[in-house]
Amino acid sequence: MLQMLTDKGIFKMRDLYTVGVDFGTLSGRSILVRVRDGKIMAEESLEYPHGVITGGLPEDWALQDPHDYLLVLSETIPKILKISEVESKDVIGISVDATSCTMIPVDALGTPLSFAAKYKDRPHAWCKLWKHHAAQYEADRMIATAARRGEEFLGRFGGKISSEWMLPKIMQIMEEDPELYEEIDAFLDANDWITSYLTKQEATEEINCNPKTDTGAGIVVNACSAGYKAQWTRDGGYLSRDYLKALDPRLENISDTKLRYPVVSLGSRAGTIGEAGAKLTGLRPGTAVAVGNVDAHVAVPGAGINRPGEMLMIIGTSTCIMVCSNEERNIKGICGCVKDGILPEMYGYEAGQPCVGDCLGWFTDNLVTEKYAIEARKAGKTIHELFTEKASELRVGESGLLVIDWWNGNRSILNNADLTGMIMGLTLRTKPEEIYRALIESTAFGARKIRDSFASGGIEANNVYACGGITRKNTLLMQIYADVMNTEIKVSQVLQTPALGAAMYAAVAAGVENGGYKDIFEAVDAMSDRNYEVYSPNNYNVIAYEKLYHLYGKAHDFFGSDSPEIMKELKNRSGGNEHEI
Amino acid sequence: MLQMLTDKGIFKMRDLYTVGVDFGTLSGRSILVRVRDGKIMAEESLEYPHGVITGGLPEDWALQDPHDYLLVLSETIPKILKISEVESKDVIGISVDATSCTMIPVDALGTPLSFAAKYKDRPHAWCKLWKHHAAQYEADRMIATAARRGEEFLGRFGGKISSEWMLPKIMQIMEEDPELYEEIDAFLDANDWITSYLTKQEATEEINCNPKTDTGAGIVVNACSAGYKAQWTRDGGYLSRDYLKALDPRLENISDTKLRYPVVSLGSRAGTIGEAGAKLTGLRPGTAVAVGNVDAHVAVPGAGINRPGEMLMIIGTSTCIMVCSNEERNIKGICGCVKDGILPEMYGYEAGQPCVGDCLGWFTDNLVTEKYAIEARKAGKTIHELFTEKASELRVGESGLLVIDWWNGNRSILNNADLTGMIMGLTLRTKPEEIYRALIESTAFGARKIRDSFASGGIEANNVYACGGITRKNTLLMQIYADVMNTEIKVSQVLQTPALGAAMYAAVAAGVENGGYKDIFEAVDAMSDRNYEVYSPNNYNVIAYEKLYHLYGKAHDFFGSDSPEIMKELKNRSGGNEHEI
Repeated sequence: MLQMLTDKGIFKMRDLYTVGVDFGTLSGRSILVRVRDGKIMAEESLEYPHGVITGGLPEDWALQDPHDYLLVLSETIPKILKISEVESKDVIGISVDATSCTMIPVDALGTPLSFAAKYKDRPHAWCKLWKHHAAQYEADRMIATAARRGEEFLGRFGGKISSEWMLPKIMQIMEEDPELYEEIDAFLDANDWITSYLTKQEATEEINCNPKTDTGAGIVVNACSAGYKAQWTRDGGYLSRDYLKALDPRLENISDTKLRYPVVSLGSRAGTIGEAGAKLTGLRPGTAVAVGNVDAHVAVPGAGINRPGEMLMIIGTSTCIMVCSNEERNIKGICGCVKDGILPEMYGYEAGQPCVGDCLGWFTDNLVTEKYAIEARKAGKTIHELFTEKASELRVGESGLLVIDWWNGNRSILNNADLTGMIMGLTLRTKPEEIYRALIESTAFGARKIRDSFASGGIEANNVYACGGITRKNTLLMQIYADVMNTEIKVSQVLQTPALGAAMYAAVAAGVENGGYKDIFEAVDAMSDRNYEVYSPNNYNVIAYEKLYHLYGKAHDFFGSDSPEIMKELKNRSGGNEHEI
Repeated sequence: MLQMLTDKGIFKMRDLYTVGVDFGTLSGRSILVRVRDGKIMAEESLEYPHGVITGGLPEDWALQDPHDYLLVLSETIPKILKISEVESKDVIGISVDATSCTMIPVDALGTPLSFAAKYKDRPHAWCKLWKHHAAQYEADRMIATAARRGEEFLGRFGGKISSEWMLPKIMQIMEEDPELYEEIDAFLDANDWITSYLTKQEATEEINCNPKTDTGAGIVVNACSAGYKAQWTRDGGYLSRDYLKALDPRLENISDTKLRYPVVSLGSRAGTIGEAGAKLTGLRPGTAVAVGNVDAHVAVPGAGINRPGEMLMIIGTSTCIMVCSNEERNIKGICGCVKDGILPEMYGYEAGQPCVGDCLGWFTDNLVTEKYAIEARKAGKTIHELFTEKASELRVGESGLLVIDWWNGNRSILNNADLTGMIMGLTLRTKPEEIYRALIESTAFGARKIRDSFASGGIEANNVYACGGITRKNTLLMQIYADVMNTEIKVSQVLQTPALGAAMYAAVAAGVENGGYKDIFEAVDAMSDRNYEVYSPNNYNVIAYEKLYHLYGKAHDFFGSDSPEIMKELKNRSGGNEHEI
């Protein structure tokens, strides 16, 4: 405990705090953290009133309303201050993270276009959520053009560009609503936009800014979003003008125009709370605001990791997998390798599975019999609890089922949004709980594929960590992961790992002079809760899963690599698409 | 109308009748038919009290209790006589058909072993239902041995032997309960056993018979069961002693012992109703009893078919597909080609899909949400009606789903019970009704595979007929079949096609001298109801399904032919089997 000597003798120094705000797919949450030990003093969350907007949109579209993000700030931050009885003067910093790439088209003032009445009816004016998957065509074009030109960046992204990223999403707008594209001043990842809202200074400043020369309203872009989602590097900036021109002449100068805002390192100070931010949050103007961050990446420090060779799986609706290393390697099919993208001076590798909890949710939403629904109600259990209980009683392989976990495409290591889910091994004896268990197993196989891919590329991850709501709620799931991956898994007991990571960066942005930390390594050392629940592999199950994983691999390779056209053709014929007869 | 001149002038001749009894998987039914025009005067059915017995048995087992068959006779035949007010003296014949190969081990008196207290607890003493699939290992051995020896019969069965047939089922008993095997006097297909019960004469005769030399209690075996299910031919008898010896020395002389009963042509008279049969049915002793028949095969005349080149699909829990031809061809993967097996002097080809209605039943039993269950109840619809309605609103390919219809293995053209069902194309948007429709489509693709296989083997089936309960109840299903197969389909409006076919054969067994017919061709001409409901292909859907069928073929070939070990390994690890680690 910090102490200060005064003329009255020894007394406690006043505790200082930071705020971390994490914007997920369906809700946002704020935590208030004590800087000296990382203790979470209060937390509050809010579901987005508009949720994920898909109604009336073509298949694969997913939008959000940025008003919901502001509502999270205004609803949750005043509450955590109140609950913890912490005064805003003792809050030295704030930082936000969000899903990514969740892209917001903004005007010259940094205001989302969808806020303006004239753009409200144009879907491309809205915030495209990370899981908006309608830009696969554009992603494919980026890959083909890069491959043809032998672009070096492609290697750093495992040979693939995801339709979830910044440029495919930009290109989709350019192609489908070119007029709107011209009217968009800039594109921001959601975390950068929220950060810019917090740091926004007086209105007069904004109005006077010249969007073509100024950075405009003090907006900055974080290196993690820029690096992973827009292929920016510290040395080379965004992708080369030649490559961008080859993609589309309109993109040639985009780094001077719609992607012109300066990219700054994680932990940097984006600015300080302005009038609007203060009004919204109850924090004091002048409070340090760290540059934004990506939810998955900021969970790495949040889970107590500040060393290379440790893998973090953030398991939720989807799964992100992160490893840092001192080595630069081209790993087949990973989503990205960005220097300084996760922790300073290290190469941060990111991979992911776009459908994990979502897949179980799909199952319980669509395929739970009345009998089971009644059984759960009578026992006072959730459907997930009931299924987990029933699935726990099954032996490995007993059902004969094998699932391929591509309900939302495959991000790693195939990086193909056209792939779809598959259940095989169905017989007349197949029971719903067997399918439920096989769905869990499939996501574990998917995670193992990613770890194996890292290992064969030379990045060993010997310590495996997990975090995310599902990891603490579903012990069956975690045991299956430990068994399938044949490794001990340490599950972080922090409820809000990304928000804690953000709060750590907020302490770095505040700086030592204000009671914060020098860098993220120090912040992690001081602020981590290293109390993990550990899952150890069961040898019997390890051997049984080894065989199933081998079969998973065969189906994975057939549909994923050898004959990807099968699922692609199926997908192309489905949903809102016209028949291509 | 038949007329007879008497001294009082012209008056109507008394109408004569036959009885057809059809034993299905879950129930049996009797019909009383007017001989002169085939009009069905009355029908009655009964669900088997014991149904399909699987409880406590290893996976793939399926037994029945032959008491249930007797109960069908005693419950339904007196009722149809009563309802129609027909006197038993006007009934000139009876014939039964049943699922096949549904094998009953009997003692020297022709009594099922499972009827005796001492055998009741031995599963192998029981009647093995056609869909008992636990003899795959034995079927595989039969194929391997036949292939090694270059046995000609293998070609007639498409290079495969089904685990559903007589010899694999016999071999399973021999291997798993060799002691019981020795005590079994003979094996009978269910229809032959039921026929033998009807024709059984006085007890003294039975007791005096010498099972080693007599045919025993007048038992005969029908050429259809013997031909399709035990590879018997009119010229060569059962399989060669050398081949059988190579399989197992205990099998060498089986055609003199446990398969010693004489094989007789379809339409032959097996005997006449004996005391026991009369007591059970209310028919008069001495009434002609035709030799038994297989449910699917006897449906061919029942559906009004007595010409070559016409394909009949009997769609129910499973589907049987039958074509007669004047040509003998080796068709890849068909279940059997038997001369005289369906219609006299023609080559009868049989193929099948072991899981059609069963698959839809599995779905509605296991995966219907509470919401849909309530919706169906409120609307006063069955779950199937509700799903059919919702599925009807979908465009072809709209769901992006593709199902492989192997919930119960594949009988034709892969003939592999280790194959399992598969659903692909799943996304977070997939709705239950989309799966329901894709299940139907998959069975249509399976049927088309079979027709295509016939065509490429030189047996064109230009006229396609369908019968079975589901064909009249589910217009969506029939339209999908017409679209997928790109052919007009004529759906028989006869509710009990197999029973009608049996009643036709009963009229043949009664003979012209008793008011019946000379042969089955005459009987079909006189007794058929040729009033079909016709489904014509919709050209738009035909083109769309053409593409989906192509994709189905790719997955079919990968899992069915190129890499069958994937599903086999999954299956082998499942259910009651021990882990093969």
